[in-house]
Amino acid sequence: MIILIKENTASADLREFISSLRKRGVTVDTAAAPAALILTGGSLPDADRLSALEFVREILPLREPYSLASRHLHPQNTVVTVGSARIGDGGLTLIAGPCSVESEEQTVAVAKAVKAGGAALLRGGAFKPRTSPYTFQGLGERGLAFLKTAGEEAGLPIVSEIMDAAQLPLFRDVDVLQIGARNMQNYELLKAVGRQEKPVLLKRGLSATYEEWLMSAEYILKGGNPRVILCERGIRTFESHTRSTLDISAVPVLRELTHLPVLVDPSHASGRASLVAPLSAAAVAAGCDGLEIEVHDHPACALCDGAQALTPDTFSRLAKELFALHGFLQKEACAQNVERSRCRWNPEK
Amino acid sequence: MIILIKENTASADLREFISSLRKRGVTVDTAAAPAALILTGGSLPDADRLSALEFVREILPLREPYSLASRHLHPQNTVVTVGSARIGDGGLTLIAGPCSVESEEQTVAVAKAVKAGGAALLRGGAFKPRTSPYTFQGLGERGLAFLKTAGEEAGLPIVSEIMDAAQLPLFRDVDVLQIGARNMQNYELLKAVGRQEKPVLLKRGLSATYEEWLMSAEYILKGGNPRVILCERGIRTFESHTRSTLDISAVPVLRELTHLPVLVDPSHASGRASLVAPLSAAAVAAGCDGLEIEVHDHPACALCDGAQALTPDTFSRLAKELFALHGFLQKEACAQNVERSRCRWNPEK
Amino acid sequence: MIILIKENTASADLREFISSLRKRGVTVDTAAAPAALILTGGSLPDADRLSALEFVREILPLREPYSLASRHLHPQNTVVTVGSARIGDGGLTLIAGPCSVESEEQTVAVAKAVKAGGAALLRGGAFKPRTSPYTFQGLGERGLAFLKTAGEEAGLPIVSEIMDAAQLPLFRDVDVLQIGARNMQNYELLKAVGRQEKPVLLKRGLSATYEEWLMSAEYILKGGNPRVILCERGIRTFESHTRSTLDISAVPVLRELTHLPVLVDPSHASGRASLVAPLSAAAVAAGCDGLEIEVHDHPACALCDGAQALTPDTFSRLAKELFALHGFLQKEACAQNVERSRCRWNPEK
Amino acid sequence: MIILIKENTASADLREFISSLRKRGVTVDTAAAPAALILTGGSLPDADRLSALEFVREILPLREPYSLASRHLHPQNTVVTVGSARIGDGGLTLIAGPCSVESEEQTVAVAKAVKAGGAALLRGGAFKPRTSPYTFQGLGERGLAFLKTAGEEAGLPIVSEIMDAAQLPLFRDVDVLQIGARNMQNYELLKAVGRQEKPVLLKRGLSATYEEWLMSAEYILKGGNPRVILCERGIRTFESHTRSTLDISAVPVLRELTHLPVLVDPSHASGRASLVAPLSAAAVAAGCDGLEIEVHDHPACALCDGAQALTPDTFSRLAKELFALHGFLQKEACAQNVERSRCRWNPEK
Repeated sequence: MIILIKENTASADLREFISSLRKRGVTVDTAAAPAALILTGGSLPDADRLSALEFVREILPLREPYSLASRHLHPQNTVVTVGSARIGDGGLTLIAGPCSVESEEQTVAVAKAVKAGGAALLRGGAFKPRTSPYTFQGLGERGLAFLKTAGEEAGLPIVSEIMDAAQLPLFRDVDVLQIGARNMQNYELLKAVGRQEKPVLLKRGLSATYEEWLMSAEYILKGGNPRVILCERGIRTFESHTRSTLDISAVPVLRELTHLPVLVDPSHASGRASLVAPLSAAAVAAGCDGLEIEVHDHPACALCDGAQALTPDTFSRLAKELFALHGFLQKEACAQNVERSRCRWNPEK
Repeated sequence: MIILIKENTASADLREFISSLRKRGVTVDTAAAPAALILTGGSLPDADRLSALEFVREILPLREPYSLASRHLHPQNTVVTVGSARIGDGGLTLIAGPCSVESEEQTVAVAKAVKAGGAALLRGGAFKPRTSPYTFQGLGERGLAFLKTAGEEAGLPIVSEIMDAAQLPLFRDVDVLQIGARNMQNYELLKAVGRQEKPVLLKRGLSATYEEWLMSAEYILKGGNPRVILCERGIRTFESHTRSTLDISAVPVLRELTHLPVLVDPSHASGRASLVAPLSAAAVAAGCDGLEIEVHDHPACALCDGAQALTPDTFSRLAKELFALHGFLQKEACAQNVERSRCRWNPEK
Repeated sequence: MIILIKENTASADLREFISSLRKRGVTVDTAAAPAALILTGGSLPDADRLSALEFVREILPLREPYSLASRHLHPQNTVVTVGSARIGDGGLTLIAGPCSVESEEQTVAVAKAVKAGGAALLRGGAFKPRTSPYTFQGLGERGLAFLKTAGEEAGLPIVSEIMDAAQLPLFRDVDVLQIGARNMQNYELLKAVGRQEKPVLLKRGLSATYEEWLMSAEYILKGGNPRVILCERGIRTFESHTRSTLDISAVPVLRELTHLPVLVDPSHASGRASLVAPLSAAAVAAGCDGLEIEVHDHPACALCDGAQALTPDTFSRLAKELFALHGFLQKEACAQNVERSRCRWNPEK
Repeated sequence: MIILIKENTASADLREFISSLRKRGVTVDTAAAPAALILTGGSLPDADRLSALEFVREILPLREPYSLASRHLHPQNTVVTVGSARIGDGGLTLIAGPCSVESEEQTVAVAKAVKAGGAALLRGGAFKPRTSPYTFQGLGERGLAFLKTAGEEAGLPIVSEIMDAAQLPLFRDVDVLQIGARNMQNYELLKAVGRQEKPVLLKRGLSATYEEWLMSAEYILKGGNPRVILCERGIRTFESHTRSTLDISAVPVLRELTHLPVLVDPSHASGRASLVAPLSAAAVAAGCDGLEIEVHDHPACALCDGAQALTPDTFSRLAKELFALHGFLQKEACAQNVERSRCRWNPEK
């Protein structure tokens, strides 16, 4: 942190301040004094607190405030292995399934279909965060049981959203814990999933910046769990034609900022089935590690979010195209460029 | 809900659809058919699901989707009584105290000072939701104990933020449970505080609309707890000069939409002590029921948010001015106008 | 500007860079080198250009980029005199009138009514910026003639929106040129009104920051016209209940940043007549120099924006209340506080 | 438009209202009366004006408010021909060149390089809309002359930004008039370019919705000029890591809403050269008609926006990759899907 000091500050005040900082173990570089102090290490005081000091003109942060998530400090890509999927190793992982688990029959049918179509993981919501207390809230524990059965019958690991730390015991048989956009800053939940070993799929908050998102990932990493997967799912903007606005730049930017895998959810981002194909293609072209796509056997009857779900058939056709596009990008024309940016931090590739 | 039907829809499709709706107990008014259907009552299907139907052109909501929080259905103002404070009865309630509880001594000192200055409740954070896992997270249970002591010594009920349903037992001696902006859509927490009896001070989410906010209040009300207090604390905009942007219109608009009391937090909204006075005055002029203001005995040393805290002296002067302003607005010039809007739904006043 | 330099930068590169800066007349303070350079004066290069240099880690701005509009450099309040109104001298100036001039009869009637109610200027649109080319675009030159007549008959100076530099000759008899939100960054227009002498009422752009707004004011001031009045009219947010979101903090913040007068337009900010009274009261309490309020003799028949217009009667009652509130704030309880902030830069008061 | 009528409205009021509408030539469908009226054709009154009527509960728009730009009414893709480029015919058009024209030498060099690299048009700014009046404002008329020479020497049509209707005569030799984001709602300028014949490249406003953008296109089309090209250049969001946020969904959504060609500008959207390649690839994958990319021979020395410019070499490599990607998408894997969406409205393909 750089502290810019106001002109005409009394030297005595400054000396006392520097001395108090050093008592806290902070290294104070005075090369730019009395105009500025450069602080590193130790227990840095709060910027808000400092800026209230009379002689402080401005506080300037020097570096990203996250360290465990930082690409700068950890150049190698993190690869999260789940079943046969290796998320983040340069391949394209598809996670597919219904928004909500509605019945065992439906979930098993969708699971088998998406497995055949190329999905590596099965998603399904049992606990649903809904804006209204009057809309369908998910089947809860029963839904998790259906999802487990479906995963077993199809031979797919399962992903489901957890909404509260107290639900952890219920998620015993879930392979990947998803944290939704509304809970991205539910810190007690982040701490709880950081204390256990399952991979965590962390969605971006509706109005969160990259830095806030990475800080939430840092909560999980700091707890001891290195298996964090980021998922861009669209942000809130003034455009109401789409449910959210897919921030496609998140893919290449996060590639620079962090070593964690980056997925894209085109279904929630757009809220409309007809946009899932072009947005998925765009995400693959931008270099994402995978996609989370909603698939429902009867979209028009889905208990939630039917308008954005693909049928299993459409999903299979799309998956085939996306794998072809991914292969093309890896091997052919874009090799010099996109691929390089993808792997620039990974000397092994 | 009004469903607009596409032109050239086959009558058979429409008949079958209407019949399926009626089987769900929905009342279908066909006066505008085949252009539109008007649906009321029963178990309305999801708008998303409906809009996926081939012949549906558009779905139009007819009414606010919340009912327990609705002014329309509950014209009388809700008054939440805490200690001697009657929040929502037309008076001006001041809640004051430090952002974070830091020590017993500090908290007791601030408590006595704000009580003398005119505050009716003492606020203080023991569990702090911080963007970074590396910044001060609050004193936790020990902080709640200090706050309790301070409240008792000053004779003030206490308000503190709860971050997780599992923390409820620790809040035994807290008089008002605060839910912060980041947890406005933590539905498990909302359900938990809805199942108990303490008043809940629900802050607006950083990018939440009025409707989303009222839907979160509805979660609490639906659980059986009618004692909900809303608190506008600023929303995220492109302006970075202030920490957030105080949405002053929230006060008169919520007055129309809901019977719940509406507070304003000028400290978090602005993030700067120098703005607390003008924003507080504006909030009182707009007709709020009270203010939540940060006060710290040594703002420059506060462990968080020092830049926005007032000293006890400044708070006392401001409180005096705000009560005078409130009195003026109630009795004098603005009587015909602002006051009337304040009380239009309350025939007793 | 502070330029933070990357570690391990070759000294030769840095020396060459410093030398090239000095050739441009820039003063380079190397007290913090090689970690940072502090640049002042001279013809500073573009931050974007600098940040592309290989050894530049970050560019940090040191000061507001506007100088003519800056309070820091011009502590005295600017007072813009129009007719008998002295906008910015601590009084409360009301500008009122119809959104659009529709007929001579209507405009004269409204002009007389708002004059009687306490308005000091008459507003009326002749050229209307409308999102759709199919909606009413204003009466144009004929509308300006009606407005002129109305102003003369009522004895009020007139304010009207100009949309293009080429329209300037048509505005010969208009006393104050208004620049609307959509044209806040129409730089050719800003330059044109900066080259003439009439006062300019500059509205804030729908998503503009304070700094961008002040930079637009700077365009006018730089042209030689010191008579600029700022007007906050709400910004675009995710809340759709109100047309825009009134950013009430703009009033006290601009007070600190600039010496120019600051008005508030509660009519466009809210888009609803029922919100004009509470928002006006809030704006006065926050310390604004005046208000621009839409008044129409038959709001339900207004050719545009009828929903937000007050009747002349309601305007008169509201004006009376606002003057009373302003008087109270000046003389009574808030004297120590709000008033002081209002006048802190004006030693004469 | 559907007008929802409040319950208990007197029949006489409603009858009188319907009669007044019919006098204006409006067709009033009363099938849903007294709950709702459906209005079509004629001179529809302003929604704002109607919503002020006492018995009106809500106004519901029925259709997109633009007609000339509407895909619904004009299913065939518009193809804008400039030189050898046919923008909108399914091919990929690259527009490249410097942000600002700085010298004849530079512009000629860049022009030849981008022509060799595959660009079909040369871009270059002579009039620059800059937030600050103190930064480089472009070479003006002299810049246009350099651009013309460069275009002639390289054999490329030229594109340049026009900022005011009065500048039209200066743009005599410019092939495509660009309207920048800040002028998207400068209606006098839109009307002026609508009255002439050159193609117009209309950039999206920084916070504009698709509908507002298409309404601005409608202004040009209504003037008689059918040659409008839309260009997504990123919108303002809370993310500050990128200059703007590229709204990639604009490509497939506009494909549905309008028949006009859609370009993407990854340089301004991201503000960083390292993001241009992945965002360009994403835009091609999403189905855009072309890209506008900044190229500068010495990015670090560019007088504006150097940080986002590519070198001619990088541009050439990227262009090759993008054409390969576009070819792949057209012919191979994505044929069924993305391609179909691209061409669904064009029966000839």
